[in-house]
Amino acid sequence: MKVAVVMGSKSDYDVSKKALEMLEKFGVQYEVRVISAHRALETLETFVSEFEDLDIKVVIGLAGKAAHLPGVIAGMTTLPVIGVPIKGSAFGGFDSLMSIVQMPKGVPVATVAVDGADNAAILACQMLAIKDEILAKKLLEYKEELREDVLKQDESIRSY
Amino acid sequence: MKVAVVMGSKSDYDVSKKALEMLEKFGVQYEVRVISAHRALETLETFVSEFEDLDIKVVIGLAGKAAHLPGVIAGMTTLPVIGVPIKGSAFGGFDSLMSIVQMPKGVPVATVAVDGADNAAILACQMLAIKDEILAKKLLEYKEELREDVLKQDESIRSY
Amino acid sequence: MKVAVVMGSKSDYDVSKKALEMLEKFGVQYEVRVISAHRALETLETFVSEFEDLDIKVVIGLAGKAAHLPGVIAGMTTLPVIGVPIKGSAFGGFDSLMSIVQMPKGVPVATVAVDGADNAAILACQMLAIKDEILAKKLLEYKEELREDVLKQDESIRSY
Amino acid sequence: MKVAVVMGSKSDYDVSKKALEMLEKFGVQYEVRVISAHRALETLETFVSEFEDLDIKVVIGLAGKAAHLPGVIAGMTTLPVIGVPIKGSAFGGFDSLMSIVQMPKGVPVATVAVDGADNAAILACQMLAIKDEILAKKLLEYKEELREDVLKQDESIRSY
Amino acid sequence: MKVAVVMGSKSDYDVSKKALEMLEKFGVQYEVRVISAHRALETLETFVSEFEDLDIKVVIGLAGKAAHLPGVIAGMTTLPVIGVPIKGSAFGGFDSLMSIVQMPKGVPVATVAVDGADNAAILACQMLAIKDEILAKKLLEYKEELREDVLKQDESIRSY
Amino acid sequence: MKVAVVMGSKSDYDVSKKALEMLEKFGVQYEVRVISAHRALETLETFVSEFEDLDIKVVIGLAGKAAHLPGVIAGMTTLPVIGVPIKGSAFGGFDSLMSIVQMPKGVPVATVAVDGADNAAILACQMLAIKDEILAKKLLEYKEELREDVLKQDESIRSY
Amino acid sequence: MKVAVVMGSKSDYDVSKKALEMLEKFGVQYEVRVISAHRALETLETFVSEFEDLDIKVVIGLAGKAAHLPGVIAGMTTLPVIGVPIKGSAFGGFDSLMSIVQMPKGVPVATVAVDGADNAAILACQMLAIKDEILAKKLLEYKEELREDVLKQDESIRSY
Amino acid sequence: MKVAVVMGSKSDYDVSKKALEMLEKFGVQYEVRVISAHRALETLETFVSEFEDLDIKVVIGLAGKAAHLPGVIAGMTTLPVIGVPIKGSAFGGFDSLMSIVQMPKGVPVATVAVDGADNAAILACQMLAIKDEILAKKLLEYKEELREDVLKQDESIRSY
Repeated sequence: MKVAVVMGSKSDYDVSKKALEMLEKFGVQYEVRVISAHRALETLETFVSEFEDLDIKVVIGLAGKAAHLPGVIAGMTTLPVIGVPIKGSAFGGFDSLMSIVQMPKGVPVATVAVDGADNAAILACQMLAIKDEILAKKLLEYKEELREDVLKQDESIRSY
Repeated sequence: MKVAVVMGSKSDYDVSKKALEMLEKFGVQYEVRVISAHRALETLETFVSEFEDLDIKVVIGLAGKAAHLPGVIAGMTTLPVIGVPIKGSAFGGFDSLMSIVQMPKGVPVATVAVDGADNAAILACQMLAIKDEILAKKLLEYKEELREDVLKQDESIRSY
Repeated sequence: MKVAVVMGSKSDYDVSKKALEMLEKFGVQYEVRVISAHRALETLETFVSEFEDLDIKVVIGLAGKAAHLPGVIAGMTTLPVIGVPIKGSAFGGFDSLMSIVQMPKGVPVATVAVDGADNAAILACQMLAIKDEILAKKLLEYKEELREDVLKQDESIRSY
Repeated sequence: MKVAVVMGSKSDYDVSKKALEMLEKFGVQYEVRVISAHRALETLETFVSEFEDLDIKVVIGLAGKAAHLPGVIAGMTTLPVIGVPIKGSAFGGFDSLMSIVQMPKGVPVATVAVDGADNAAILACQMLAIKDEILAKKLLEYKEELREDVLKQDESIRSY
Repeated sequence: MKVAVVMGSKSDYDVSKKALEMLEKFGVQYEVRVISAHRALETLETFVSEFEDLDIKVVIGLAGKAAHLPGVIAGMTTLPVIGVPIKGSAFGGFDSLMSIVQMPKGVPVATVAVDGADNAAILACQMLAIKDEILAKKLLEYKEELREDVLKQDESIRSY
Repeated sequence: MKVAVVMGSKSDYDVSKKALEMLEKFGVQYEVRVISAHRALETLETFVSEFEDLDIKVVIGLAGKAAHLPGVIAGMTTLPVIGVPIKGSAFGGFDSLMSIVQMPKGVPVATVAVDGADNAAILACQMLAIKDEILAKKLLEYKEELREDVLKQDESIRSY
Repeated sequence: MKVAVVMGSKSDYDVSKKALEMLEKFGVQYEVRVISAHRALETLETFVSEFEDLDIKVVIGLAGKAAHLPGVIAGMTTLPVIGVPIKGSAFGGFDSLMSIVQMPKGVPVATVAVDGADNAAILACQMLAIKDEILAKKLLEYKEELREDVLKQDESIRSY
Repeated sequence: MKVAVVMGSKSDYDVSKKALEMLEKFGVQYEVRVISAHRALETLETFVSEFEDLDIKVVIGLAGKAAHLPGVIAGMTTLPVIGVPIKGSAFGGFDSLMSIVQMPKGVPVATVAVDGADNAAILACQMLAIKDEILAKKLLEYKEELREDVLKQDESIRSY
């Protein structure tokens, strides 16, 4: 089972990398692509048509400004699509959040926080873990890691 | 020369009607369609591929919430695309405005005010008038009409 | 496999019903609960601890105003949690959207549109369909339904 | 056929340059001016009265803060007017967007993204291309360029 | 000494009336006009050119949506111009507030609250009172009235 | 006749200076003070009680965040009060704009743009010019200066 | 020990009543007043000077629009001041929230949700309960009530 | 009597320090902790259960983005909880403000300005001062300090 990570422009790569690294941490394979919904729609359609052959089960779409990419993919597939709004220069990612989260009835996009590519990857793993018990265990371990990290932060602050 | 008027859902018809009536006022022919970018993308692609045969020169796209329709059309054609944000229930059309106006480099959408379908039609006529001198004259007459209407309003207020 | 549908208050039931009806349409079983994260945290912890026994695989949390419920559940489980912001009186659901979507690293909530409970249910089905092929087929059929519904709307408008 | 590019202040020149360069790329001639609607209204009226003699067919107006310039020009002419909100210091261009896009009935301004001067130029070319077939071809070539650029970005990311 | 009250459209009359009534209360004469900056700019210029003959000393401009009227008047005169944003349907007057208050250097508009036409009139009286001592006294009396009205409200609440 | 310039904190001085310099340019005398409405209310009351003796005719109040200063002064006097929202760190001056412009009935504050202290000073001069003809002439000269400055900018851009 | 409940206008009474009823529920005595900070500042000063004699220990201030009342009281006393933004017509209480919560260093206002007068009263009781053990117990009972109410709602939903 | 200062992440320490320093200035003891509501809920429950033993009377919770921490603590205790929104990267702390202030009926959080940790500490002292007369006196002295600081600022500006 794989995750597709699609960004609208190479300039979104720095944020996208956080998703890739998180997927790697969980040992989940991915296909990473730069395909603009506005500038290369046919390439996008081709890629979506290959999802089954590529064993892609979840899609992460990242885009800034009028961020149509995740929604357009969601219109093309019945796989779950996760949308990551990218913080744009003018409105701090508010425009992309509106464009991604406010999808019409029938075509949901699972939206995460602005620039929250790492969380998008975790969410993708949580979805795959419905089928994959080993991944489910890794997620429990990661949750424990998070907890321990907070406890360490707590200890270091208390000993100031 | 024709104008295509495309809305994302039949529920946008009340606003769209303002565009149709304005086009009729200017004697401009149109094709009116309900084609969702998310639910009927291929129908949209087919319609766009017919633009040349239908002698369509300008497109008006109306949509609410995460209003991707005008932007997706703009990705498919080099004709000018006018976008009309529809006032949605939750954010007063603010979400659609963001989704329509903040298009990335290379793929503009000419955005008008929330629910401003009449202005979208006027803008379409202004574009066609670059080639059509009779339409250009009608636009001057309409401007004069607007002026006279204000003068009448002014008179009626002054005589209170 | 079941979906848990948890709302923060009975006043969210009207919106929640849209999720329940959609789940029923897809033949997916659910547990529906009213458990406030602020007023009955222990009940929430108990319910979350029963997820495995109840065969719950996805959680939908609905809440208005400072909508902490989906995020708090996400902190308690590694199952995917879908958050539905409820349109509140003062800010049109903007406050709940902010509270749900802007989750910190490590604890994602899959956020859908304000009042988008039907989309939350579809998203839940998409997640379950990773494992359940029959559900996957139903989702394809639903997508076709959506398409046909748009085509019918299109036809009715064109024949005006 | 020419495009008029009018900015409200010389400080808007950096953004305006993106429009000029794009027009040059398409071989479209332009008149560039700095004319404030508030500080030199008569100069603006004079310039607008020369549009016919100068063979100006489309106007691009750029302005920040309470950006009245494009709207005031739209009140003076029946040519299509494109408005570019300039990102101001305090509200990230939000004030200019509101001032430009929310025009009243009868007087549309074709609004593009904040600082989207390049898109304003493309939109102007799209309008002129209604009459100018060579320009229409150039726009198709540009669209192809955009597509190829995305494909190259895609390739470079995939080979990381 | 007179106050000019200019609204962009007759539909703004209900709000404008609050200004007229307040001016009458203070015995200040006014000229009331409906003159759109976008649809009847020359009429506006004519009216402004008559300010001296009409003994107009302060201007109140009321407008909704992309409310350019007060700012355009401010560009035409050195008299103080007061701007009243009118609550529009889509954004609750937020668009008009942005368009009125964010004026560029050199051309201020004295902005009051959304729909605050009564306060615009009081502000106009305060300005005239710099020269008119009788008006200054009336303003002191009005302030006392306001105070007494609050005291009465206070009493009635305390006796519940 | 003098203008009072009151800021809420010494940290507002950089913005306030723009008002002082503009007043000096017009030869208008001023009293400049740092008096917080929240931290030194009695000092503010004392200062306001001296307005008549000091021949103060207009007040400019500058404040950031929950900017109560101009409104509180407006509650204490019948002189016209001009409010300048200061751009705060978190919300770009949006909080101060709301706190200054949305004054209740009976107590207006003439609000200018965020950080628009120079415009506040011009507005103050426009008010004083109702009584002072020499100042009225200086304002006409300044308007001419503004116009010429734009014409120069225009020329320099056209000769690029 | 008493709580002072001060509203800016009698029109805020409907919201204020929620605070009074909650205080009555907890058996806490209160003084309720209508005193505008802008229209009756001296009355406000008098009332604040009586706090000690009246055994007032906490203040609740309710106000809409440019809601200065709670902040001005906070400037006059060292007692804890709770601010309740009232939902205004134009911006849904957003303006009052900004005016109340964004207080400068040294003068905090404890802000609750828009129209959240009941929560303001509970917060006041929580503060008094630092000294009053009986009140502390009542608060525990109320928390239990809230919990049981949720459980009842939960039960009724589950039995649908 | 002590104050608990809980932050959601060590990255909030810089803001939190302002609270700690203010508490130290007033001689109030505190417990400082890093405990995320999402990543270490049980640790939070443990800490809250120790409040009585630790003689904690007021809680300050600081958090950014979807800032659930103060609200979750408020759900666990009947002590007054003060919430400090932390200015996040994308929305300038607006998301945290919404998440903290808009709490549902029954569970208030006393919200202060974005990054207003110093004010949170002062508010905590004001609450404790209901019982502690020495602290009440220190607060009066601090108010006098604030006043004198403004007077000094005033003097230094006036002597420029």
